[in-house]
Amino acid sequence: MSLTDRSTQNSQSQRILWLLEELEIPYNLSLHYRHKSGPRKGRAPPELAESHPMGKAPQLVTADGRVIAESAAIAAYLITTYDTAKKFQGDGGRNDWVRDESLTSFAGASMGPIETMKLFLDIATLQTPLLLRPLVRWMMGAIDRAFTGPELKQMLKYLECELGGQEYFMGKEPGRADFMLSFPMDMAVEFGWVDLGEYEGLKGWRERCQAREAWKRGLEKGNGYDMGFVKK
Amino acid sequence: MSLTDRSTQNSQSQRILWLLEELEIPYNLSLHYRHKSGPRKGRAPPELAESHPMGKAPQLVTADGRVIAESAAIAAYLITTYDTAKKFQGDGGRNDWVRDESLTSFAGASMGPIETMKLFLDIATLQTPLLLRPLVRWMMGAIDRAFTGPELKQMLKYLECELGGQEYFMGKEPGRADFMLSFPMDMAVEFGWVDLGEYEGLKGWRERCQAREAWKRGLEKGNGYDMGFVKK
Repeated sequence: MSLTDRSTQNSQSQRILWLLEELEIPYNLSLHYRHKSGPRKGRAPPELAESHPMGKAPQLVTADGRVIAESAAIAAYLITTYDTAKKFQGDGGRNDWVRDESLTSFAGASMGPIETMKLFLDIATLQTPLLLRPLVRWMMGAIDRAFTGPELKQMLKYLECELGGQEYFMGKEPGRADFMLSFPMDMAVEFGWVDLGEYEGLKGWRERCQAREAWKRGLEKGNGYDMGFVKK
Repeated sequence: MSLTDRSTQNSQSQRILWLLEELEIPYNLSLHYRHKSGPRKGRAPPELAESHPMGKAPQLVTADGRVIAESAAIAAYLITTYDTAKKFQGDGGRNDWVRDESLTSFAGASMGPIETMKLFLDIATLQTPLLLRPLVRWMMGAIDRAFTGPELKQMLKYLECELGGQEYFMGKEPGRADFMLSFPMDMAVEFGWVDLGEYEGLKGWRERCQAREAWKRGLEKGNGYDMGFVKK
């Protein structure tokens, strides 16, 4: 089995590396690098399209040669196939598969669009020629104040409430929803969009995730997980 | 069991109504209406937040009173619980659960962000005061030509290839991935972002979906599925 990572920066692959390390299974890691300059700066390199037509990372090549490209599907496949001890499948009660599906979809289909837009608003301002920048900054700021800013805050408030007093979203151990939520949460914090000081529960959850040995091992094996490039 | 729909326009609820009708199970439908004016024009009404803190539709209230708010999770719950004949779970071979997870995630976590951005680019232009509109239209067009436009085309090309010669993405009958993909596909066509004439397979797939009696019944029960409001 092998995993294709891309980056040096802000790669969604870290959450899959984290999961692979939690499962303690052997895998080959193939690292790729984003375009460093030119019109596709920061985008995925063309060789990623050879293994999957969307040309994005991460991609998982399973032991029997199947390529899976969506992180939520990769995580589901890995947990279903290799978590025979059922450690990462929720610990029962409300921490069941419906919750896992709901929070996994929330991370991708609800937080994903809002954070993509927030990232766009940030980048649009930074890439505008100096003369127009104040106007564009004002426009983008107005959109964020009216729409994306409040939406993201509501999402974090909702997640804080969903976590409740639990260690992880899926109970005493992380489940797919925790792995999947780690990326949009890291974006929100690292890009400076939210102050986790306002969300005690989420702050503790993130610290617990990042204190895990498997998280640290994943971080070492990947080629960087630095979202600083659009920091203001 | 009951379903909360919102709209009169472009509601994601249609795909869930379609699924409910395919499953031929009884349900109560509670219709809500978007704000018609004011600063929250087009957004969800406040009463939706009483049943789920995110305040969005659709929401499914299960027979035992649980509220599920993410469409991918609602669809998974309905199919797992009520599709005892396994009609909507893929017909084997490559049409298995990994494919279902992959394409479901693709609809929400990959197409979702790109289409949200495209919608934003369209709306930003329309909402700009007349004097600034040419400038903003040029800016938004440049972003679309450089990024969202090519991305969406690549996505449709990928889906065309994934469908191959099949009736539906999950085989001879639609599966969760088909229900989930119907919304982003409808957005792409109805907002005029793509011409399905270039994608013979997807064109046929969409016609087959919309020719199903369950699709039509869903459409009649909902309160409208008209995305014309941002048509150019």
